[in-house]
Amino acid sequence: MAPRKPIIGVMGPGQTNVHTEPVDKLVELATELGKQIASHDWILLTGGRSLGVMDAACRGAKSAGGITVGILPGPDASDISDAVDIPIVTGLGSARDNVNALSSSVVVAVGMGPGTAAEVALALKARKPVILLATQPEAEKFFISLDASLVHVAENVEAAIVQVKALLATQATEAQAAEA
Amino acid sequence: MAPRKPIIGVMGPGQTNVHTEPVDKLVELATELGKQIASHDWILLTGGRSLGVMDAACRGAKSAGGITVGILPGPDASDISDAVDIPIVTGLGSARDNVNALSSSVVVAVGMGPGTAAEVALALKARKPVILLATQPEAEKFFISLDASLVHVAENVEAAIVQVKALLATQATEAQAAEA
Amino acid sequence: MAPRKPIIGVMGPGQTNVHTEPVDKLVELATELGKQIASHDWILLTGGRSLGVMDAACRGAKSAGGITVGILPGPDASDISDAVDIPIVTGLGSARDNVNALSSSVVVAVGMGPGTAAEVALALKARKPVILLATQPEAEKFFISLDASLVHVAENVEAAIVQVKALLATQATEAQAAEA
Amino acid sequence: MAPRKPIIGVMGPGQTNVHTEPVDKLVELATELGKQIASHDWILLTGGRSLGVMDAACRGAKSAGGITVGILPGPDASDISDAVDIPIVTGLGSARDNVNALSSSVVVAVGMGPGTAAEVALALKARKPVILLATQPEAEKFFISLDASLVHVAENVEAAIVQVKALLATQATEAQAAEA
Repeated sequence: MAPRKPIIGVMGPGQTNVHTEPVDKLVELATELGKQIASHDWILLTGGRSLGVMDAACRGAKSAGGITVGILPGPDASDISDAVDIPIVTGLGSARDNVNALSSSVVVAVGMGPGTAAEVALALKARKPVILLATQPEAEKFFISLDASLVHVAENVEAAIVQVKALLATQATEAQAAEA
Repeated sequence: MAPRKPIIGVMGPGQTNVHTEPVDKLVELATELGKQIASHDWILLTGGRSLGVMDAACRGAKSAGGITVGILPGPDASDISDAVDIPIVTGLGSARDNVNALSSSVVVAVGMGPGTAAEVALALKARKPVILLATQPEAEKFFISLDASLVHVAENVEAAIVQVKALLATQATEAQAAEA
Repeated sequence: MAPRKPIIGVMGPGQTNVHTEPVDKLVELATELGKQIASHDWILLTGGRSLGVMDAACRGAKSAGGITVGILPGPDASDISDAVDIPIVTGLGSARDNVNALSSSVVVAVGMGPGTAAEVALALKARKPVILLATQPEAEKFFISLDASLVHVAENVEAAIVQVKALLATQATEAQAAEA
Repeated sequence: MAPRKPIIGVMGPGQTNVHTEPVDKLVELATELGKQIASHDWILLTGGRSLGVMDAACRGAKSAGGITVGILPGPDASDISDAVDIPIVTGLGSARDNVNALSSSVVVAVGMGPGTAAEVALALKARKPVILLATQPEAEKFFISLDASLVHVAENVEAAIVQVKALLATQATEAQAAEA
């Protein structure tokens, strides 16, 4: 069968985020990031709700003809983004943050909040690479102190996409080596 | 945006199942069911492992050009079916059975075992319709005793597909009524 | 340190149960069962809510000076039984049914409903022994068909307690053999 | 019935932690913290494994006659600390970190690592107070930037216990006000 498409997780605050950039800026970045992910033929995975970064990334991806997966925390799809193609209804509450982390080949955090911090930490615990975009210096310093080998900081969307590409190439090489 | 495609869950034993039909029969039914689901342009959701009913349904769907989602129990995708397009790696063990139930518009059980029984019971708890295919009479009587309004028995794959179609139509009507 | 006390899970409908005995009868049985569990110095584990069998079993156990653990489905303890000593707040919804199954050395079902059926099926999937008390014949036949070696039917509370004792003795013997 | 005892969660690295204090120091602090929690008649909740901070806190609590609850990630209790009285076997992997956060009235982090960071972030997401003990400055600055109203830094075990006491008193006052 055809090789499976990589899944890129985009995580970020659902609501206004006073700690970093104004939410409008995050929405703009997430939209562009989603668009770029789709145009590289990667699948976009988000928390799936009709809010903030999740929603914006999905809208961006759909505008470029991509596929979007939303991992919803509630027991039904009542708060889903219109731009999610495939809703996974977990009913797990915030425990679904770990499903986001485990299901993504690479996690990109756009902005920061307690939920995003949980997703980044769970990704590191599962040995997944993380790219931080538009996060405050405190977040960058902290996550790098946790695991400098897995945490990358991107200056802008273009740089994040270059990093995703490089990380996917490394994973593919490692997977081949493991099979050989 | 385009309306979201319905997600049909197909659940069934991963391994030989002495309680009902021989597993070869279940694999044959699940393959045909997956094919029919794909040809109706519905998304197929299964437990995603490279075993028994899950694997067969996914292979059937892919042979008809469908989209397949696999909700994996483990913390990585090491036991995934080749025929899964979109792996959701939950790390939840059997608690992922509830994600299968909540994420499906309709659940079709092909054969029966403890895991399938859990998925059917969790679907009923969440008020989801369930279709039983190739399950033993004890299973049919029990689940009908739990909730006769939600449990349907199908004689064959064709009948199951007719029931899925009718149940999706009812759900669409109810959703419209709720919005009006 | 002192040996750990066994944990006995008591599962059953939260609300009126038309399928089996009237709920008053189930509440009476669950109360007596909880009392007996406590008087044998076992820990009682339930779903923890202030309803039906869960609540009754906890009240029974407390009346005999026992310890009660409640595995709550919601994100807070707002629906907790007054008779729960140790609330575990899971936020998992029905996925917490698997925590109930995995955390119990023996599961006793008092009455039956979709949630109880899920807990029994998940217990069998995890190879845990299950005792059915006051369940309808359809349930007994079905679960025995799933795994006759793990499913036991009890005529009354006394018989259930005798079975729990025997099952715990078998588990202790097996654990010793595994260590030797 | 008697009022329920508060549950205090102690989280911290399971293994050697190069980021903060040497692990021996963390084990010493966690042991003393567990002892103090028990002597205040609070229930201790940890991740339950036979490793690092979890194990040390439980040993400390048992040495002072306390009750210890362990929320285990695996599908069985094979890696449990001997000093856990009540094992909750979740099978959830790291998704159990959210159960730890939700079940604790106050979370105390002793040292820091990816898992501890996830637990602290999930606690903040659930609006639970967190006390940081022996964590590096990067962690303190980051979590305070996430939510200064919920994050407290303790200089030593004594100070952490004073903070727990104050936070429990505030919660009790708020609960009374909500009922009135």
